[in-house]
Amino acid sequence: MVWLKMPPRYTSSLRQTLPFLFLCFQILSLLIFMFLISSDYSYDQKYLQRYPEFQDINVMIILGFGFLFAFLKRFGFSAVGFSILLVAFGLQWAIILNAFLFGHKDGLRVISFTSLCTGLMSVLPALISFGAVLGKMNPVQLLMMTAFEMPVFTLNRYIMTKYLTIGDHISMMHAHIFGAYFGLSVSWLNSSPSQSTKANKEKENFETTSELFSMFGALFMWMFWPSYNSVLLQDLVQKSNAIYNTYFALAVSVVTVFSVSALVNQEGKLQMSHVRNGMLAGGVAVGYSAFMVQYPWITMTIGFLAGLTSSLSRTFFQRTLNKVSLVHDTCGVHYIFGLPGLLGGITYSLLIISADYNSIEILGYQAIVGIGCILLTLALSLVSGLITGFILKCKLFRPPSEHHFFQDQPFWEATLTRTPAATEATVFLFSPQSMHSEHLRPSKKPDILEENCG
Amino acid sequence: MVWLKMPPRYTSSLRQTLPFLFLCFQILSLLIFMFLISSDYSYDQKYLQRYPEFQDINVMIILGFGFLFAFLKRFGFSAVGFSILLVAFGLQWAIILNAFLFGHKDGLRVISFTSLCTGLMSVLPALISFGAVLGKMNPVQLLMMTAFEMPVFTLNRYIMTKYLTIGDHISMMHAHIFGAYFGLSVSWLNSSPSQSTKANKEKENFETTSELFSMFGALFMWMFWPSYNSVLLQDLVQKSNAIYNTYFALAVSVVTVFSVSALVNQEGKLQMSHVRNGMLAGGVAVGYSAFMVQYPWITMTIGFLAGLTSSLSRTFFQRTLNKVSLVHDTCGVHYIFGLPGLLGGITYSLLIISADYNSIEILGYQAIVGIGCILLTLALSLVSGLITGFILKCKLFRPPSEHHFFQDQPFWEATLTRTPAATEATVFLFSPQSMHSEHLRPSKKPDILEENCG
Amino acid sequence: MVWLKMPPRYTSSLRQTLPFLFLCFQILSLLIFMFLISSDYSYDQKYLQRYPEFQDINVMIILGFGFLFAFLKRFGFSAVGFSILLVAFGLQWAIILNAFLFGHKDGLRVISFTSLCTGLMSVLPALISFGAVLGKMNPVQLLMMTAFEMPVFTLNRYIMTKYLTIGDHISMMHAHIFGAYFGLSVSWLNSSPSQSTKANKEKENFETTSELFSMFGALFMWMFWPSYNSVLLQDLVQKSNAIYNTYFALAVSVVTVFSVSALVNQEGKLQMSHVRNGMLAGGVAVGYSAFMVQYPWITMTIGFLAGLTSSLSRTFFQRTLNKVSLVHDTCGVHYIFGLPGLLGGITYSLLIISADYNSIEILGYQAIVGIGCILLTLALSLVSGLITGFILKCKLFRPPSEHHFFQDQPFWEATLTRTPAATEATVFLFSPQSMHSEHLRPSKKPDILEENCG
Repeated sequence: MVWLKMPPRYTSSLRQTLPFLFLCFQILSLLIFMFLISSDYSYDQKYLQRYPEFQDINVMIILGFGFLFAFLKRFGFSAVGFSILLVAFGLQWAIILNAFLFGHKDGLRVISFTSLCTGLMSVLPALISFGAVLGKMNPVQLLMMTAFEMPVFTLNRYIMTKYLTIGDHISMMHAHIFGAYFGLSVSWLNSSPSQSTKANKEKENFETTSELFSMFGALFMWMFWPSYNSVLLQDLVQKSNAIYNTYFALAVSVVTVFSVSALVNQEGKLQMSHVRNGMLAGGVAVGYSAFMVQYPWITMTIGFLAGLTSSLSRTFFQRTLNKVSLVHDTCGVHYIFGLPGLLGGITYSLLIISADYNSIEILGYQAIVGIGCILLTLALSLVSGLITGFILKCKLFRPPSEHHFFQDQPFWEATLTRTPAATEATVFLFSPQSMHSEHLRPSKKPDILEENCG
Repeated sequence: MVWLKMPPRYTSSLRQTLPFLFLCFQILSLLIFMFLISSDYSYDQKYLQRYPEFQDINVMIILGFGFLFAFLKRFGFSAVGFSILLVAFGLQWAIILNAFLFGHKDGLRVISFTSLCTGLMSVLPALISFGAVLGKMNPVQLLMMTAFEMPVFTLNRYIMTKYLTIGDHISMMHAHIFGAYFGLSVSWLNSSPSQSTKANKEKENFETTSELFSMFGALFMWMFWPSYNSVLLQDLVQKSNAIYNTYFALAVSVVTVFSVSALVNQEGKLQMSHVRNGMLAGGVAVGYSAFMVQYPWITMTIGFLAGLTSSLSRTFFQRTLNKVSLVHDTCGVHYIFGLPGLLGGITYSLLIISADYNSIEILGYQAIVGIGCILLTLALSLVSGLITGFILKCKLFRPPSEHHFFQDQPFWEATLTRTPAATEATVFLFSPQSMHSEHLRPSKKPDILEENCG
Repeated sequence: MVWLKMPPRYTSSLRQTLPFLFLCFQILSLLIFMFLISSDYSYDQKYLQRYPEFQDINVMIILGFGFLFAFLKRFGFSAVGFSILLVAFGLQWAIILNAFLFGHKDGLRVISFTSLCTGLMSVLPALISFGAVLGKMNPVQLLMMTAFEMPVFTLNRYIMTKYLTIGDHISMMHAHIFGAYFGLSVSWLNSSPSQSTKANKEKENFETTSELFSMFGALFMWMFWPSYNSVLLQDLVQKSNAIYNTYFALAVSVVTVFSVSALVNQEGKLQMSHVRNGMLAGGVAVGYSAFMVQYPWITMTIGFLAGLTSSLSRTFFQRTLNKVSLVHDTCGVHYIFGLPGLLGGITYSLLIISADYNSIEILGYQAIVGIGCILLTLALSLVSGLITGFILKCKLFRPPSEHHFFQDQPFWEATLTRTPAATEATVFLFSPQSMHSEHLRPSKKPDILEENCG
């Protein structure tokens, strides 16, 4: 139980950086809102009608991601807590950035209800990147990562909408690719082969309760994905199509993932992590083209391919990658968001080429633009991710040492091991056997707690 | 711990059937959508307005049922995982069936956003039947059960709407009765008195965490039941009435169930399973008549009677049924959906007879039709359930043997017992006592794991 | 384990009171609805449009509060179960009271869809008060508390809207203050220094799973708070403002609470209970003024102050109060709802004074009325709380004795300690050591269970 002990220097250090950095960020954001941003409170019926969908996305991002990441048995508090922290900070930061780049109106930087919606959706890449480095960074590093990632992602969207003339919706769909590859680059620089100690591997093993919490987050994301793929669309026919098509793709990817999961296992058993991650792949892949497809079988095929890609790549890719230890991807965001996102982007371009130009008036030129957008996103995310990863290695942020990976203890007070009740019952159970069990209880147990809690 | 061991033949067998059957089903469904179904993507404002209610039903069916069934302490993965699987497959199958039977438009089989909503609601009987056989069937059997149940349920609805001229809404409300009695028939043929071994009974005992997950699913169903009882209604006055009345019935059934649960217990203690199941009975029973009742006290009375029926029948009926071992009903769907559904159907007919004909223009003849619908549903569900149950006994599907009942191990990889942390702590706690505890840990623990995971 | 034993007289007593009292209440409510209340089923488009927001509030109140209170590791069933019970009863009672005081129309007491929404929101103070006495009262006492609290709260709202001419929305926002101080008064009379035994303190310690369930409830409340702060507003511009401003305040209070939580801890560690409670403070405080503020930085400042108030007061206040043992506040409702509510009320008055009278036409006189409302609410809640607390001490209600505090066993059947699986595994693990462990299992374990379950 050596890995439970913490050098006192480490823990005291977060007290010196975390509160002040967070407060600075918060007050800075407040001041920017105070002096640099005007707000447009003129009423717009259209935006209020979007409110139920906004709430769906809210649930998806806050509850969905928070609990999806709660699958590490010793890292539940951090997964849920840091997710809401990143959303609360990232949202303000994204709204500011969007106001500066997109929100000009009569020479003023203006925000409105749409800014809230766009801001919330812009937090997505930060959360995806959090998934890749899950358990390997402290909250200060995570906040800095979000602070660096947001501007690049907003710039990416700005280039796409301004110079490549693609819509708000499609530009936002690149969040999946951006977040995944940014996170992988950061993770590449911040994890090393030496981290795969036996203790760390044990901490990455799953456990029933935490896996159910994670499934619960994944189900929320699954259910509300149609809202995510449709909320930014202005045209009501496109919106209705997007909802419809996304649901079909999601349903097909669930069935596909169950098949593949049983197929790749030697005993034909299913794996919860396959199912949980793979079932979201359909929604990611179909995001680009859901609004324009006219036949459900096309979206179903996309969902089928996404399910296959996600679960097969996870099975064969991750094992190889882990062996060569190039990149450690705790949550497997590469297989949930990265590859299905790429698949979706490519399918989008292919569909445009093969489209019936009478029904959808889009130029074949857009197919090339589609591929260009993917390449731009990949380039920007990888380069900025590497720079960010390099900065975050800095000792200033006091990154957690490897034996603190994947556990709540360095960041949260007194997280006892689950079920002290059970251990107590056990003591009681054995008390007739050992005569000195009564003084074992006060003398031994506190030691464990102390070690646990540093 | 004999029941944890599995013959290797068994586990390998699922690998031979599950993936291929699932993939076949999925590709078949894709081909049907490709060649036989046209889709109507013309925009309809009315359907998009229903989207928030559609999402409520989505949550109710996917999260609600999935977690409601997670009350078996060793069966959480299967409950949640197989629920989403059944929905994902059943939805496609139901949409196809609905398109063939109901969706004719200009000689084509047409689907639209309504098809998605109707399809999702048609999955309900399959999930209810899953509740009756919970823990006693493998995923291949469950998929086959859904495949057989859907056409009969759709046929049932077709006969009701076409020949008995009742509306979409009322015909859908028979899902509760259909699902419950279909499931009970299947369960009757697939469970035997010999399954009630001590080990199986232990596995059916509840545990705090799984019970809370289950309560959580039940609460989602409770909250969104008003949406379920109103979404298919076209008339906005009826819709508003249905929402209103359902909420009252649900509230009354909660209070009633708490009283009865304390009353029937010798020590006046409450039982979580009573509360969880009984509180839904009000929503089931009021589904038929919620849209037409004009006085809240009538719906409150229905909720009161439903609560009484559900909790009293569960207490006195189940004990007797278990003794005679006629039918084993794991989740008690008979008391949540079956009996309250019958109560609701009968009340509906009674209310029509006593209705004030000036305000609601319905003929007394409809009362007889109402009873006829119930009898038709009962007949179809029992007969088709028996046939399906007989087919599913077939060795081809490799049904799980009785000592594999109510546990995840045969289907999911390496579900460790909850809290390996606790056991570790215990080892540590006792280490001073036994000198050889250090080599106990590596030598003994893997054995357990091996046994657990087969 | 002496505190697990229960005198048989106690448990039998609930059987004599609980079922009959609950049934009486339910039948009484049914009779009132039958004879004294008319219902207005005339359709109103506006109310049906509110349905998605109504569902948000439904989720917030039922799931949110139920699981927020599930943080006590031995009190999960009661927290979730009694919450839904209080809502189901309180809702009917509140609708009746509202119909009698507010619902006159042509000489009749009329209810409609709005009554359902107002009724649901009126249950909030009862749930907040439940949080203050969490684990220290039996369900009969809780029901009586709700029965006494509702009329005073409705009277409070009646006086405010009728004589102080403030709107429905603002009058409802006083629910936070009312509920918190009512609950604290009741708790003051029903808890004593002697309750702080070692066993009770141990039961108040948290545990990972229950804390995650609690966080999950808190997140639902956080996400849907914008709906709560906007649903009663008629004007669509105000509604849209309220949604917008509430979200900003909530986001800022999250970041603030994280900073403060790390700052006040000696090792710079975060505390889950701080985060969980403090992040809601922003929503509470901004509720009063969200609809009228025109600049986001003002709401952000309110959120910032609310986060500071909540987490600092919790840290320094609660320690002192616990030492003097004046008031025991299990869930800390004083810091989630009480103080932030007061802050919000005062800010509201200050904002009115400093408002630009051209844009918002409100009189400076309203600022004084605002302060008057707070004082009225405080006075009514404290006085009625003290009277109710005094009545509830009565032996007739058989309050639980102090060694039954904070646990499910007196009220729920056979709640085993979490994870019997773990204890079993432990027995197995140690079996080679002790030769008689085989007969330990059948002989010793049932004893524990018996003790646990009384």
